[in-house]
Amino acid sequence: MTRENKPGQEPRARVVAEPVSELTTNRLSVYLRCLTALDAEGVRTISSQALAEQFHLNAAQIRKDLAYFGEFGVRGIGYYVKELRRHLRQILGLDRGVRVAIIGAGNLGLALADYGGFRADGFEIVALFDTLKEKIGRRSRGGVVIHDIKNFKKMARREGIGIAVVAVPGDAAQAAVNAVAAAGVRAILNFSPGAFKVPRGVKLKSMDLTVSLESLSFFLVQGEENG
Amino acid sequence: MTRENKPGQEPRARVVAEPVSELTTNRLSVYLRCLTALDAEGVRTISSQALAEQFHLNAAQIRKDLAYFGEFGVRGIGYYVKELRRHLRQILGLDRGVRVAIIGAGNLGLALADYGGFRADGFEIVALFDTLKEKIGRRSRGGVVIHDIKNFKKMARREGIGIAVVAVPGDAAQAAVNAVAAAGVRAILNFSPGAFKVPRGVKLKSMDLTVSLESLSFFLVQGEENG
Repeated sequence: MTRENKPGQEPRARVVAEPVSELTTNRLSVYLRCLTALDAEGVRTISSQALAEQFHLNAAQIRKDLAYFGEFGVRGIGYYVKELRRHLRQILGLDRGVRVAIIGAGNLGLALADYGGFRADGFEIVALFDTLKEKIGRRSRGGVVIHDIKNFKKMARREGIGIAVVAVPGDAAQAAVNAVAAAGVRAILNFSPGAFKVPRGVKLKSMDLTVSLESLSFFLVQGEENG
Repeated sequence: MTRENKPGQEPRARVVAEPVSELTTNRLSVYLRCLTALDAEGVRTISSQALAEQFHLNAAQIRKDLAYFGEFGVRGIGYYVKELRRHLRQILGLDRGVRVAIIGAGNLGLALADYGGFRADGFEIVALFDTLKEKIGRRSRGGVVIHDIKNFKKMARREGIGIAVVAVPGDAAQAAVNAVAAAGVRAILNFSPGAFKVPRGVKLKSMDLTVSLESLSFFLVQGEENG
């Protein structure tokens, strides 16, 4: 059973007490992206069934995930696209704009700094940081300035950095994680390889390219052996 | 209980019948990286306990994961670093060298093409592909040539592409996934946002930057509400 609102009734957002799994928040992100696409197409309402069919999702899962955060469905109508989108952005903390710094101005750091998708989603890349003197003061193609990592703490406070992206060589990564945590930044998206000691109260999410490629390579080997 | 070999005995690699979870293969990748670092430092043997302490891992988990694939530990010695590293590379299919193509020669695709870490790990970036006429024939800074996506199928066969990396804008991603699958490439590492229809027999692993950032943003919001 899905809890639903009567037509015309304001959806109520629930305060969430239990911890929410990362898989759930990942799905909320996906729903948000689907709603943004629908909104851009001028779609005003959609049922969980239609949402699932259009975007290759699971209707029951959608209803369950959303019911956890509030009563967003309206009987006989489904979801109001604009409204649900606004609620999801609020749940994910995107309505306030999240300020992001990138540690490491190598190929990957520079590419991430100029990646257009972030800004549309409510993230703002505020600054790049590096240790190399010859890089400091220069800019990415998109205009993000490269600062001295020594000034990270000062700038993180002044600029209100919420998330630090770590894109440095493996042997510099633990030092970068430590510097970020010492500056009071509590969320890290890490692209550097290896296992890290993460200070208490800090959330580190790793996107390890090599680990992902190796997992695909393993899949290919297994396929050959089993097929 | 860990199964162990007697000193001097060749470790036996097991044929794995049951499916192995992605979390397990991810951990194997991490172990491999640790062993590569130890080998470079000239370390010849290491116990699961020492491996765990040095790299912030779990000793019991290491023993369990490795025991699944064979009998690699030697009583009173631990693991032979070089040998275990060789076995892990074999299990992950890295000993043969995996050939990779990148679809999308934008900022991210170009950065990935020149990322030095891949080659050391047994992956070779063979080619970039794009649809834009003005990009075709040019090269990344590191020298990877950009080809017309129309020639993907032909080149994938000729070059023996094992994995395709998809780094195109969201609205072009499903077409890229379809083209890759139609060419007979069975493993995709996807950086484009959105949910995809993935043909049967093809494994798609998504690294969605926005989803990861949104999950961190959610963590920050929850922290404020609870703390």
